[in-house]
Amino acid sequence: MARLVMKFGGTSVANIERIRNVARHVQREVEAGYDVAVVVSAMSGKTNELVGWCTDASKLYDKREYDAVVASGEQVTSGLLAIALQEMGIPARSWQGWQIPIKTSDAHGSARIEGIDGSRLLEGFSRKEVAVVAGFQGIHEATGRLTTLGRGGSDTSAVAVAAAIGAERCDIYTDVDGVYTTDPRIVPKARRLDRVAFEEMLEMASLGAKVLQVRSVELAMVHKVPTFVRSSFDDPANPQPGTLICDEEDIVEQQVVTGIAFSKDEAQITLRDVADKPGVAAAIFVPLADANINVDMIIQVVSDDARSTDLTFTVPGADFDRARAILEKSREQIGFASLQGASDVVKISAIGIGMRSHAGVAARAFKALADKGINIRAITTSEIKFSVLIDAEYTELAVRTLHTLYGLDKA
Amino acid sequence: MARLVMKFGGTSVANIERIRNVARHVQREVEAGYDVAVVVSAMSGKTNELVGWCTDASKLYDKREYDAVVASGEQVTSGLLAIALQEMGIPARSWQGWQIPIKTSDAHGSARIEGIDGSRLLEGFSRKEVAVVAGFQGIHEATGRLTTLGRGGSDTSAVAVAAAIGAERCDIYTDVDGVYTTDPRIVPKARRLDRVAFEEMLEMASLGAKVLQVRSVELAMVHKVPTFVRSSFDDPANPQPGTLICDEEDIVEQQVVTGIAFSKDEAQITLRDVADKPGVAAAIFVPLADANINVDMIIQVVSDDARSTDLTFTVPGADFDRARAILEKSREQIGFASLQGASDVVKISAIGIGMRSHAGVAARAFKALADKGINIRAITTSEIKFSVLIDAEYTELAVRTLHTLYGLDKA
Repeated sequence: MARLVMKFGGTSVANIERIRNVARHVQREVEAGYDVAVVVSAMSGKTNELVGWCTDASKLYDKREYDAVVASGEQVTSGLLAIALQEMGIPARSWQGWQIPIKTSDAHGSARIEGIDGSRLLEGFSRKEVAVVAGFQGIHEATGRLTTLGRGGSDTSAVAVAAAIGAERCDIYTDVDGVYTTDPRIVPKARRLDRVAFEEMLEMASLGAKVLQVRSVELAMVHKVPTFVRSSFDDPANPQPGTLICDEEDIVEQQVVTGIAFSKDEAQITLRDVADKPGVAAAIFVPLADANINVDMIIQVVSDDARSTDLTFTVPGADFDRARAILEKSREQIGFASLQGASDVVKISAIGIGMRSHAGVAARAFKALADKGINIRAITTSEIKFSVLIDAEYTELAVRTLHTLYGLDKA
Repeated sequence: MARLVMKFGGTSVANIERIRNVARHVQREVEAGYDVAVVVSAMSGKTNELVGWCTDASKLYDKREYDAVVASGEQVTSGLLAIALQEMGIPARSWQGWQIPIKTSDAHGSARIEGIDGSRLLEGFSRKEVAVVAGFQGIHEATGRLTTLGRGGSDTSAVAVAAAIGAERCDIYTDVDGVYTTDPRIVPKARRLDRVAFEEMLEMASLGAKVLQVRSVELAMVHKVPTFVRSSFDDPANPQPGTLICDEEDIVEQQVVTGIAFSKDEAQITLRDVADKPGVAAAIFVPLADANINVDMIIQVVSDDARSTDLTFTVPGADFDRARAILEKSREQIGFASLQGASDVVKISAIGIGMRSHAGVAARAFKALADKGINIRAITTSEIKFSVLIDAEYTELAVRTLHTLYGLDKA
């Protein structure tokens, strides 16, 4: 029998009425003949409450204890959904991470799934039993302690379970009805995509399209698990298909550009007249890395006399002040004339696997943005995406311009 | 090093401030040189919330899933207390029932502890680590599923852990400061007892003095675990001793009567002119037992002609109507002239191991109650207690009369 994983997030299981609605979605798939594993998050708000208690008890809480406390949220919903399914006449049982087990690293609070033994879930299927799996949690086997995967970890649980039991697909039910060409709140003409390639989704997730956790997309790509993003608020009797995230070979009509993402949480730092000598890049970037500051776009412009350069890069907006302080402290060691910074900048990215086989995709964007009077502060490109850094006030204009330029507007 | 178990109930861990207060109690005992295992309940109100969700999901919920849901409450407090202890510089870790393990039967919702492997807790002690044990929960090993022990089960967890690790004593911290000679709300002269024998406490617990769960007292008696009942609201720096529940050999000055208990939840049924023939008792009591109705005091009065009897017995007040309906249905089979019932009755009991060696203890009560004009509807006696059934309106008068009669009034 074909197997299916269905995942429901916190807003979808926020109360008993919604849990019953989730049960109806599961019922539909059971009646369609699937062996179903359902992965659930904690009721919305519960995880925040539990985290708040840990922080109240100690700002420097032990992450192992944090995990024991926070994992309880998914335990509750797994049991409640099993009860709701049974009430509808569907055999079901809850599975905690340690019962399956879902084996993880001991990086408490952000553990990594290292392996899942799917055999007990499959035994349950042989008894026609729906498996209700507590998401977000696992066990570090050597110590026997509870672990959690970090925020959004239930997506990762779902994809990993799907890989472990050889599921035909993994359906991620969420509060949006799929993946869009860009944020519909900014571009009303944004379209829901029928299909997105794993690589594209990975870039979109990394760039701030918060539909799926990055790690879950990585896992889906590695294990080739076709993954749907779809709405849990659809009528269970008449659900919409959502967006399929799949291998690029399964996308027949490839667009050059699939989506436009943007990230507002950016700040730009420019160091003027940096001495062009060996080791200078290390002198700049090692202290930032040591302070856990994630440097993104880096552009180096060599001066006319080739003896000094201007160096521009971006950091997360939240780290802007800290990064400047660190650099000022190393000013003599690095050797730069002045430091300029801007926190009112935004990174706009166009993503599409079609870029691999099409030249000049980015160049068209530079021209279109220039035509609208938008100044580009920095550019980076990779195989399937390019990004430009611009002044924040042009965000909406730039996103709409690129959305139209690449033919993404809804008819 | 001497070992100690400390147990804190729901009101003692109701919020982070109270959990910190619990941590201070633990700190005192650690500094006194004890290896400490702390057993905690869920935050007060949490268990009711979780039970409510189960009932909402299905009136006929699967008790295995109920256990998975409800056990989460103690998981949360165990982690939070471990964090609070660490914050005070005391090494600590949480232990879930399945991690120790606390092995139980598979009677989900009211499982019985079958064994506790104390070795992991002892290993923790060797690392100077306080063990914070989630009360109320365990695991059924054959199925690997979570179990709970039923209401008040954390007391039982505490005593069982104390037996498993060979603790010097078990301190049950609660919202009262000990066991009293009777309910101080009814008898202002009630005294806190310094010591109570296990057998006496067992009778008191069974008879409605709700300080400790009956099962925990049974376990303490079997394993001879000296158990203190004391207040969690005492100043951690200056705690009061509470009441020690211990072997009767450790009680030097034994009272004839140690305490007066009463149970308002009683109803009396009298069957008049029951045919005095073999099998009639079975015809009456088997149907009641089949309906899970617990029959308590039974009195049979033979009529003058010795051909019929009057039969009186008590049932829980909540089962009164059901019991009457069952008996009326079996009227012909049993053969009785009429059924009389009263639900405004109360059972008053005097308990004391001294009764074993003193004659006429009960007779003094009958006289004292008669002197106050209190009519006794039924009497039962056992080795260390006697009970009388009286009209409910005389409750306070009767309790005070017996309390004074047996010299229990505070000086």
